[in-house]
Parts: sequence; C-alpha cells; structure tokens
Amino acid sequence: MSNAEIGLIGLGTMGAALALNIADNGFDIAVWNRTSTVTKDFHANAGELADKITPTETLEELVAAIAEPRAIILMVPAGQPVDDQIAALRPLLGENDLIIDAGNANFHDTNRRAEEAGDLPFLGIGVSGGEEGARFGPSIMGGGKREYWDRVAHILTAISAKHEDTACATWMGEGGAGHFVKAVHNGIEYADMQMIAEVYGIMRDGLGMDNAAISDTFAKWDKGPLKSYLIEISGKVAGAIDPKTGAPMLDIIVDAAGQKGTGRWTVIEAQLLAAPIPAIEAAVVARNLSSQLEARAAGEDLFGTAPRQLPHDALSLDTLEQALMAGKILCYAQGFDMITKASEEFGWALPLPAIAQVWREGCIIRSDMLDDMSTALAEDENRNLMFAPTFADKLKSNHDALRQVVAQGALHGIALPALSSGLTYFDAMRTARGTANMIQGQRDFFGAHGFARTDGGSGHHGPWGNN
Amino acid sequence: MSNAEIGLIGLGTMGAALALNIADNGFDIAVWNRTSTVTKDFHANAGELADKITPTETLEELVAAIAEPRAIILMVPAGQPVDDQIAALRPLLGENDLIIDAGNANFHDTNRRAEEAGDLPFLGIGVSGGEEGARFGPSIMGGGKREYWDRVAHILTAISAKHEDTACATWMGEGGAGHFVKAVHNGIEYADMQMIAEVYGIMRDGLGMDNAAISDTFAKWDKGPLKSYLIEISGKVAGAIDPKTGAPMLDIIVDAAGQKGTGRWTVIEAQLLAAPIPAIEAAVVARNLSSQLEARAAGEDLFGTAPRQLPHDALSLDTLEQALMAGKILCYAQGFDMITKASEEFGWALPLPAIAQVWREGCIIRSDMLDDMSTALAEDENRNLMFAPTFADKLKSNHDALRQVVAQGALHGIALPALSSGLTYFDAMRTARGTANMIQGQRDFFGAHGFARTDGGSGHHGPWGNN
Repeated sequence: MSNAEIGLIGLGTMGAALALNIADNGFDIAVWNRTSTVTKDFHANAGELADKITPTETLEELVAAIAEPRAIILMVPAGQPVDDQIAALRPLLGENDLIIDAGNANFHDTNRRAEEAGDLPFLGIGVSGGEEGARFGPSIMGGGKREYWDRVAHILTAISAKHEDTACATWMGEGGAGHFVKAVHNGIEYADMQMIAEVYGIMRDGLGMDNAAISDTFAKWDKGPLKSYLIEISGKVAGAIDPKTGAPMLDIIVDAAGQKGTGRWTVIEAQLLAAPIPAIEAAVVARNLSSQLEARAAGEDLFGTAPRQLPHDALSLDTLEQALMAGKILCYAQGFDMITKASEEFGWALPLPAIAQVWREGCIIRSDMLDDMSTALAEDENRNLMFAPTFADKLKSNHDALRQVVAQGALHGIALPALSSGLTYFDAMRTARGTANMIQGQRDFFGAHGFARTDGGSGHHGPWGNN
Repeated sequence: MSNAEIGLIGLGTMGAALALNIADNGFDIAVWNRTSTVTKDFHANAGELADKITPTETLEELVAAIAEPRAIILMVPAGQPVDDQIAALRPLLGENDLIIDAGNANFHDTNRRAEEAGDLPFLGIGVSGGEEGARFGPSIMGGGKREYWDRVAHILTAISAKHEDTACATWMGEGGAGHFVKAVHNGIEYADMQMIAEVYGIMRDGLGMDNAAISDTFAKWDKGPLKSYLIEISGKVAGAIDPKTGAPMLDIIVDAAGQKGTGRWTVIEAQLLAAPIPAIEAAVVARNLSSQLEARAAGEDLFGTAPRQLPHDALSLDTLEQALMAGKILCYAQGFDMITKASEEFGWALPLPAIAQVWREGCIIRSDMLDDMSTALAEDENRNLMFAPTFADKLKSNHDALRQVVAQGALHGIALPALSSGLTYFDAMRTARGTANMIQGQRDFFGAHGFARTDGGSGHHGPWGNN
C-alpha cells in the first residue's frame, strides 16, 4: 500500500491505454473505475504489467494506494463528470496532492478548474494520439502551474512519444494552455483530414480512379514531402477490403462524418480571437453538411449529377500532390497564427516551436513537415508561417497547383471547401489592396460607421448625401 | 406629466432616431439620457416634433412622465450597460411596467434577462436599418412574452417600415427570439456585403473597370433581379467623388473592414447548432483578414502581384450578375436553414415566411428577392430554400456562372471566399455520395470511432489490423 507513484481514474479506452503505458514505463500505478468489474478485468488482462498495477475498489482505497504527495490522473468524459470527480476526490486528498485532468476538456473549463483549485495542485493536460498513442506514446500538452508540471514531468515525458530522443511532452503555460493547444491541434486535424478527403474526391470522381489506385497514390505520397500519419492511414483505409462483402472498405462506409466537438470549440475560439482559420471552419462545416444525407440525395436528384469527370489531363497526380502540400501549409499557418493570437490575448507565452515539436510524433497530425515548421517558428514566432522562407518557397512552387485543383473542382461540381478556403486565404494574404474598402463604404453609407482614408486619419465619412 | 405613451432611454444615434420616429407617428414620448445636455439638445433640435417629446433629467422624472402601465425602450450599448440600466430602472417601476431592450443584445443575454425579469414585463427587440431605418421605418424583430408584445405592437408596427401596407415588425417568439433573428440578419448582411465586395474585386482587378463603370453596373443590376438596398448603395458608393481630393471616394477608403461583433455571434451560434453557414463564416473571416493590412502588403511583396487581369472575354458582366444571384440565394438558404435549426433547438416556432417579410423593407438586407423567399418558405418552412422550386430554378440557371467566376478567381489570384463557399455548399448539397467516408475511415482507424455501413448498421469497425 501507499507505494504507487501515480493514480488514474477512468479505465475507458483512453484511460486503460494510458495506465498500461505508465506501467510499461516502469511506474507503479493505482487505478480505479466507477464500475469495479471494469477495474478487475483491466487488471486481469494486464499480463506481465499486472505487477505494476494496483486495482482499487473505492476512491479511498485508490488514494491510500498512492505515495504522498499524490498525483492522480482523471480520464473521465469531459464536462460535468470531471467536476463531479474532482468534487468527490478532493476531500480525500491532502493539500499537496495533485489532480491532473487528462481528458478532452474545453480549455475554458480548465481555466475555471485551475482557478477553483486555488492553492490546491491541479493540471489540465491535452493528450493526443488516440488509443494507440495513449498506449505507446502520445503527444502531451500540459497546462497549469509550472511547479506541478515539474512534479510529474518525469512520468509524462517517459510515456510520451519521442522524436529523435526528444519527448513530445511539453508544458505550454498556466491554466488551460495545454487544452487550448490541444484544441488547435484538433482543428488542424479536421482541416488536414478534410483536405485529404477532398483530394480523394478528385481522384474518385474527377479522375475515375479505383480504391487500389487511390491507395497506391497515398502510399507513394507518404514517401515524399507529404509524409505523415494521416496520409499513411488514408492509403491503408483506401486499400482495405471489407471482410464481410469483399468490396473495398471505403465503398461500404457511409459518407457522414461525426464529431466530438473539439473542432467546433476551435472555430468558436477563433471567432472570439478574430483569428482567421477558414480552412478549419470549412472542415467543420463539411462534417456538418456530410450528416445531411437525405438532403444531399434530394439535391442530386433535383440538380442532377454534375459532370464530375475531369477532361483528360486536366489534373495530374503530381498537381494534386502539390495542391495538397500548399493547402496543408496554409492550414497550419492558420492554426499557428491562432495560437499566436491566443498567446497575446490570454497572457500566455505559448512556445510555438516546441508545439510543432510536440506534434511531431504521437498525435494524429504528426508529419515530417512539422520539423521545418518548428525551425521556421524558432526563427520568428510572430511571423505567419506562410512568410517563413522555407514555406514561402514551398507556396511559391505549389500555389499554382492549388489554383488548378480548386478551379477544376469549381467547374466540375466537386466540392473542395477546405482547399478553396486555403487558396482564398493565401490570395487575401498576398493582396495589398483588397476589397474591404467597398464594405467600409457600405457601412459608412448605411450606418455612419466611418472609415480610414488612404491619405491618413480615421473616422471619416463619405459624401453620400443620404443623411 | 404622466401622459407619455412610451419612454426611451439612451439618445445616441439610434436612440434619437427611434424617438423622433415614435413622435413622428403621433405618440407622446418621454426621453432620458445619462448626460442631460444630450437630452436638452435633442429636444431643442426636434423641431415641430418637440411638442410630442418630454425631455427628463432624472430616471424618476422619466418614469413619472409616462402613463401606466409604462413601457420604456432602452437604447444603450449592448452588454453590461443594459444590465446596469435595468438594475437602476426596475426599482422605480410598477410590476406591470414593461422594459424593452431595443439594442444590439446577444440573444443569450436576452434569454437571461427575460428569465431574470420573472413575472416583470420584459421584451428584447432587434431593430435593423441603421440610423435612417430607425428614423423613418426600421425592421423590427420582437422577442419575449406575446402579451407584452401585444401591449406595444401598435407603436412598433406604426414606426416600422412597410411593404405594400404590411408592417415589417413581427413577434418572433419568447425570450431572445427577436435578437436571435436579428443576429442571423446581420450574418446574412455580412455575407451579402462580402459577395458584393468580391464582385467589385473582379470588376476592378480582373476586368480593369473604373469606378464609374462599376457604379453603372451596380445601378443597372439594381433594376434587375438583384434589386436591393445593398446593390443600390454599392452603386452610389462606387460612384461617389471624394470632396477633398476629387478622386473616386472608393479609392480613398482603406480596405480594412470593422465589425461590431454580431456576425461573430452568428457564426458561434451556428457552430453550436451544427448549422452550416459557410458563406457567412467566410465573410467574417474576410473582415478579420482585411484588418491585417501590413501582413497583406508583405504578402504581396513576397509572393508578387498575381496576374489578376482576366483574359479578354473570360467573364461577362452578365455572368457576374448571375453568379452573384446564385451566391446570394445560397447565402440566404444557409441563413434560413440556421433559423430552422434554432427553432427546433430552442423550442421556438420562428415564423420563417414572416421573417422574410420583416426583412423586406427597413433593414439593410432588404431586397425584392425576399418576396419570393417568403412565398417559398410559406410553402414549406422546413425545406432548405435552395430546394424550393422558384430558387432551385434560379440556381439551375445561374450556378454555372458561379462556377466560372469562382474558377477565374482561383486561377487569377482574386480572393472570392464567400462566393467560393457558396459554391462548395451548393455542390456538397447536390452530392449524394460525398467523401466523408474517408474521414470516417480515418477516424475509425486512429480512434476506433466506428462508422455506419451502406448496407446497414452503425458502430462498425474496419479491418485495419492496427489494434
């Protein structure tokens, strides 16, 4: 008793995987789940790791099993369950004991919980990488007081993913900083996945490729500059065969994407920050639209099937690859720009190069490209990534491909919302003289909102003669 | 004393205009402003309407000047000032006296205030049309208990805009329903303005037209199916000459658009409702991007000026007009779809055809097209507007023009975010078999999220062999 170095509450998919990971790295861990049979089964199935795991049947037993000062990870569903669990646990703990919420919390909740905890130790950490990551090395984004992070950093870095011996686990800042960075990660993940799905749509509907050829294409791209976990698994998904029917698995999956809400949070926060993340917004909208299966079918009946097949040689696979490269860079540029804005707004000093490194392995958006991003951000954290020489060069080489793809999609009725948003973002950001002067003219005309003049001064009004 | 039929607090631009409008319609009104000199000046400048207006110097005096049961309109800045004003006013009122917040409240605040008011009468009304509308006939969207609306409906309908003898003032539902509808109005306004700005960009940068020709084009369009207040004033804005320099006014206005936050609220609420409004989201993003003047100039330096001039005959002005028609329909379809979703989610019965009628005159987005929209929505409120025969026909005739415009913008570096988002929305809504199956495959691969199968059932997993 009282020997475990850490405790964990909540043995669902992610919690169980994380507990095994901790044990696997040589730490004694005490675990508890609301339903005792889950705890027993977990321990019974832990194999040779069972020795490192102390299953407990009550919260009191859990607390007693952990060495002081205690550290206990919560892996319970986000929202009220976390507050309920903290309320049940805190009275059993000493004032030096640390509670770590490692679930999918909204960072505003983490800010609130950190404040409610007062002088009692509390951390909120974002954990990315799904079940596989949790079990064998996730990406970990920590938030809360630095001293609490330091108390458990040896465990969190040990269990985290590694990239060339660097642990993908970093303290991001106070309060909800870790969960905030995790939210942006998820937003980027949405956009990255959506762009891949759009490119898949071009291959399937525009180029008439079968699943095997699509799979081969992703596999080939995974050996080039797009090399990343999402490209890798897209190739595997496209290549998989349904055991039940023998048909390509992808053809059997209904085209309605779910979401657990973190993409939505990212968009809402971006709106509050006035941070432009149109590719991420487009990806969330695309998921919402995908769920309207009946309406979409009615739409196709009403408006007819578009002539989606592209003209021969309209787009090569190389052009597609380049377009996806450009789209991906622009999507990350938006995400990092949002982090910069949040850092200013919330008084954090979010470590942008380290964030790129933390995402380098373990998480869903891990990719080779993040190495260059980390380097570019280290040169100048406040510069939009698209202006960093490495990425400016890549955009110069690839934006024309993105233009060709977006234009073909538009002409042939293949919806490319995220790629289109990436392109319009790029073009807006390279246009010194935009068209918002018309909007300012309209606003002054109908609402006397005033405008700035190119020859100086603001709050001017036009000679509209209407009031 | 005690003879005024209504009171009004807050004699800023909008409050003063509304007070004059009320007096102009024959109602005795008592007014009060925090700064007494504002009240005195207002009364002194009211001309022949001064007789109908009772200026007061204290809140107590204001209350005493109004006949019981009283009704008092608040026209103070949204947010805390409204709560402060209610807190100061309520103790002076009888339990039958009605407070009406006619400012730009977030509808969640209006919901809260209605609940806090309990049995004390409270209304939240959205007022659109800018200063001109407030003075001579705004569009009014009411929210709160129906019996309170009925008490002041004769005044609010009298002062509202009229369309063929129908007052553009309607009770929308309980609580914040009026302010919610106003927020969606503003979201549509953002998108409508942005699409016009984008078309202006094509004319200026793609077709090389001067401001006079652009003005003439808008003026011509204002005689056709696009006839609307925003098209009308866009023509006037483009045609105006700067008195100071003699240059076209539009060329002197800085291309950085401000916002007062209602577009942002609409986007946030749409995210929470999972309502897809990509054209509105794109418009808000475009305003945020427009404010990054320095970054955009740096972007143009770095990436060069795109060859924005379109090839001769690439796009005709008729094609542009048709594209804007299609874009506009899709933008309204998104807005009304969001209202439908909110109506379900919040247990309102928002009257969609009446909303189209209320917007028909008085407000910024007033247009001829709203007549057909009202008719189409009356046929079936739950049908997406793009599926209503009238608008489906218009889309069938015009979507190809939208394709041409979006493709040319993409190829030539002219950012068309709202028009592009309109098109990708249309194409997603006409695609029975989308590409979210790839996203579901990825999600199941990395997170075991499960997917539905086309041959039935949900929660299935693929043969990924990775866990």
